[in-house]
This record gives sequence, structure tokens and C-alpha cells, in this order.
Amino acid sequence: MKIGKVGEFGLIEKIRQAAPYGRGVRVGIGDDAAWLDSRGTTLLVTADLLIEKIHFDLRWTSFYALGYKTLAVNLSDIAAMGGTPAYLTLSLGVPRSFRSEDVEEFYRGVRALAARSGVSIVGGDTSRAERFFISAALIGRAPHRPILRNGARRGDDLYVTGTLGDSALGLKLLKKRSRQSGAGYLIRRHNFPTARLAAGALLARSGLAKAMIDLSDGLLQDLGHICKESGVGAEICEEALPLSNAYRKFTAGDPTIALGGGEDYELLFSARPRAREKVERLKARLGIRVTRIGRCVRAGDGIKVLDRRGRPRPLARRGYDHFN
Amino acid sequence: MKIGKVGEFGLIEKIRQAAPYGRGVRVGIGDDAAWLDSRGTTLLVTADLLIEKIHFDLRWTSFYALGYKTLAVNLSDIAAMGGTPAYLTLSLGVPRSFRSEDVEEFYRGVRALAARSGVSIVGGDTSRAERFFISAALIGRAPHRPILRNGARRGDDLYVTGTLGDSALGLKLLKKRSRQSGAGYLIRRHNFPTARLAAGALLARSGLAKAMIDLSDGLLQDLGHICKESGVGAEICEEALPLSNAYRKFTAGDPTIALGGGEDYELLFSARPRAREKVERLKARLGIRVTRIGRCVRAGDGIKVLDRRGRPRPLARRGYDHFN
Repeated sequence: MKIGKVGEFGLIEKIRQAAPYGRGVRVGIGDDAAWLDSRGTTLLVTADLLIEKIHFDLRWTSFYALGYKTLAVNLSDIAAMGGTPAYLTLSLGVPRSFRSEDVEEFYRGVRALAARSGVSIVGGDTSRAERFFISAALIGRAPHRPILRNGARRGDDLYVTGTLGDSALGLKLLKKRSRQSGAGYLIRRHNFPTARLAAGALLARSGLAKAMIDLSDGLLQDLGHICKESGVGAEICEEALPLSNAYRKFTAGDPTIALGGGEDYELLFSARPRAREKVERLKARLGIRVTRIGRCVRAGDGIKVLDRRGRPRPLARRGYDHFN
Repeated sequence: MKIGKVGEFGLIEKIRQAAPYGRGVRVGIGDDAAWLDSRGTTLLVTADLLIEKIHFDLRWTSFYALGYKTLAVNLSDIAAMGGTPAYLTLSLGVPRSFRSEDVEEFYRGVRALAARSGVSIVGGDTSRAERFFISAALIGRAPHRPILRNGARRGDDLYVTGTLGDSALGLKLLKKRSRQSGAGYLIRRHNFPTARLAAGALLARSGLAKAMIDLSDGLLQDLGHICKESGVGAEICEEALPLSNAYRKFTAGDPTIALGGGEDYELLFSARPRAREKVERLKARLGIRVTRIGRCVRAGDGIKVLDRRGRPRPLARRGYDHFN
């Protein structure tokens, strides 16, 4: 069957089935990162692929930003397991027409964030390629039991960190070369996303987060992963969605992009309702926004977004499939 | 400066300088694998990139063989450090025209070797791409101090496992679609290389190997890495080179391909001359060929290959640079 027909998630499912867990593998393919035992140490491993014209466009991004974001995206996966990042391998396919300064500038971007997040670049490979691409693998540690996607229960509250939709909106403005006030903020949110490492680690250590994922493909699609793995449905209150002032300015508060737009790299997690006060205290400690946006319901009820009058909003086709 | 001018090794050197060692990094970029500390466990990490038309050609290889070889190549890097492989991430760029069966066949090849070598596939990423490519990262453990490239001393003996040149010769025959007797053996050596895991682990554990590398780019080029890192030169005896019967048949014993041909995935190591008897005993225990092919000399003498009369052989341009 043609790859286009199977689709990205179909292919991942086939690969998952083709890769049975071996010794030491607590969680393999299918969560944000793999959870591995290595003689008493718990390792987390995540891998990402970024290809020119599919995942990024050098017309809208600098090599520096691309390097920074490559690491940020992988940090975010480790954050979503509650882990601490440690070692990065980077393999690059580089067109012959590039200048070596371009590659050095890319590494400067990686290094700026690596230094700040305690990550060492420890290996990789390079080759000539027709199109520029980046393949990263990040190894981290989980001092506590990692938080998976499957721990949500019916009745759990759903929370997100930060604000939603800024990145997708920032990309739109970037393409329009917008210089309106507020555009710069949104564009920076797109180019230099903040992986929520401290929040992820604290949510895991405190035991408050029961299921957790990072938002790379858009809230609705990533929430879908938690729902599927946990066997629950979800109700999201449109009004509760955390939107930045800049986002409100450009969209008049329309939540469409916040619901479906990708690359926020915020954390979505579930917590028991009795933990609300504890989540509040943790929020104060972290100094970032953590917003309750809905709750988990019966699996049969699927995912609903309720408007301010409590009516379900019609949902557009969700997410993005590279192969379709 | 254009990448083509800097060249592959120039680029790796720039990346190496741009990636200073962080905490826990004992050896970063530049050896066969990274050597990392993770709370008392020693980790090894290696990464490889394989791109269609550069590293492989689907006219000459099946998806199954490609999967097998992808893992074999990475196992070989872990073997060259004396380690034991454990966890693999695989990221694939897949053209839309592929069938999902192609990808499944690729994974069958990976799995066949993974099962045999105690490796679990724990993650990765997939995306559509113009050309098929594979990016792998393999994590292993080193129970003992890993063997680096820099431990050779003037006067050390040089050894290789197995036989040399079979793979490069096998590729030539594959392209000619040769069906002559012996061609099948050489082609299998090209498609299904044997990573020398047991030999690498035993050489490390016994302390016999002082410097070690796996032969991926051809004997002379990889020997060059040991010489450079150890600060020695080398003399290789042409007559001592271990050649298979099939190789002799097709080349009349000409060692050119054995000296320069890549993808042997045998181990090259140095050992002190007083350890010769111990190496002999280890050879018997391993049940594979281990051949003394020369010795380390003064750095200033460079690398020489001596013919049967002890005269230096003129050496052709060595190895392959993707960017040139």
C-alpha cells in the first residue's frame, strides 16, 4: 500500500508493532520519549526529524533560530516525561551549495540553548544531501517515574502551561513579513519556543500530573493522544483557553488557531480534581501560566470544545500528516 | 566558505570545536561513539546517516538488507569501543511513492539483527522526503573503560579481525550483477556485514587493545585516524593482509581494494608486542581471524605499506568525502 494512503500515524503504528519491547524497555515507541532502564539509571530518549520545506523554510528562519528550535523541540519531549535532558546527537544532511558558516551558525543556535539547559552535543553524522535536514536524538534522565500519556482518568482536570496558538500565528505573520506591533512577540514564540523543563520536572516530581504530553501538533491533536492512550474523552472550554495579548490582538480572540495550530511546545497534563490547590501552589512556584482548560469525560463522548454558552463547537479536520 | 571546500572532515572538525564537552561527557564527537557518564553507568552513543544514492542504491540492495546493514554499521561503532549495544532510535525520510511494505521490510531487516544482538528499537521519527534516508542513533553500555583511538604507542603491533576488501569488491560485483562462483559470498559480505561485538568486548575487557577503530572508510583512512589521535605512524605489510579466498580469486591477490575499500566493519586495533601470545589465545577463543598486519612507528614516518620485498608501495588518494 502506498505510504500516502497509510499516513504518518498509520506508519508509526506499523513501526510500533514491528518493534516489540526488549529487556530494559519500559516504554518504547509511542510516547513523547522512550523510558529505558540502564543498570539502575532511568534513561529517556527522544528523536526528531526536521526537513527543509516540510518542517521549516529557510525563507522564514535563520540558521541560528533553526538550531535553537531543533534542540527546543527535543527538550520539550523530555519535559513532557518529567525528565532532565543530558546528551544530544545531531545528524545533518547538507546541500553542497551551503556555506560552512551556515552550519556553524546553526550550531551556535543549538549551543546557546544547550548551555542553558545542561545539554552536551556528543555525536552525530554529516552528509551531503539534496535538501537540508536535521535528525536529532536527545538522551535524558528521569529521576522519578516518567509521566506517560496513559494516566488520565474520567473526571480529571486538564491544564496547559503558557499560552496557545502564538507559534502558528507567528508563522503566518512571518510569511506576511508583518511589522505590526505584537507580531515580533508571536514570531519569536515561533522561532524560539520555550521547552517547559522546570514545569515538567516539578509536575512529575510532585506526582500531580497523571498524564502529560507536549503540544507539537496542536492542542486538539495532542489531546487526542492522551484521550486514546488513557481511554477517556475530553471537554475543553473555549473561554478558558490561555491566549496572549498579541494573539487576541491579531485574531479578535478567535480560538481556532489556539485549538489547531502546532508548535506551541507547551505542556498539556491531567490532574485529579482534588489536587487543584496544589496545582495553584506549584504555579506560583514556577512563575508561568498554568491554566485549567477542561476535564476528562467518558471515552464515548470523544473530544468536544464548548463555547461560552456550553454548546459544542464544530471541529475542523485536525492536525497535519506529512504523507497526505 | 562553500561546504564542498571545507570537506566532510573539515566540517566535523568545526562541529567538534563548536561542541565543547559538558558534564558527564568523557569523550564527545570524534571517536567511534561518545562515552558518557550517567549516574554511575557508562553509556556509549553513536549516530549514523544513510542517504539513498550516496550511501546506498536501491538498485543493488533490498529493503531488508538495508535495514540489517543500518543496524550493523552502528553495532560496529559500539564494538570498536568495546561496548554492548542496547537501544536504537531510527528516523526515516520516506518518499511518497514508497509502499508501506517497503518500510516494513526495512524494519524486518533491522529486527532480525536487533534480536540477535540484544538491541531494542525504542523510538524515532518519520517524515515524507524526496529521497529515502535513514538516521540512526544507538545507545550501548561499556562495562569497562572504552577503547579509544588514541591509545597506540610507537612499537605497538597492529591487528585486524576478519578479512579485508570483501565488501568493496562485493559491491563492484553486485553492480555488474556477477553470478561467478564466489561472487555471492562477497556480495553477502557487502550487504550483511558482521559487527565484531564479541571481539570488541573481549579486547576491551582483557585490556589487550590499546587503540581500536572499526573499518568503515577503508583500512588506510581509518588507520589514519588511529595514527592522528595516537601521534604515531604505521607500517603495514602488504603480504600480511588477510584476504578471503573469494577476494583472491577475483583480484589475483592485488591488495588495492583491501587497503582502500570501505565498509568492511572489521576491527583494527593496536596491542603491545609483549601481548602477542595473549592475542593468540584470545583469537582461539573468539573463533575468528585476527591478523597482525603491521606496527606503529614514529609519527614523522607517516603511513607506509611495504610490499613483499619491504619496499614502500605508492599510495593512492585515500577514502571518500561526501562533500567533494
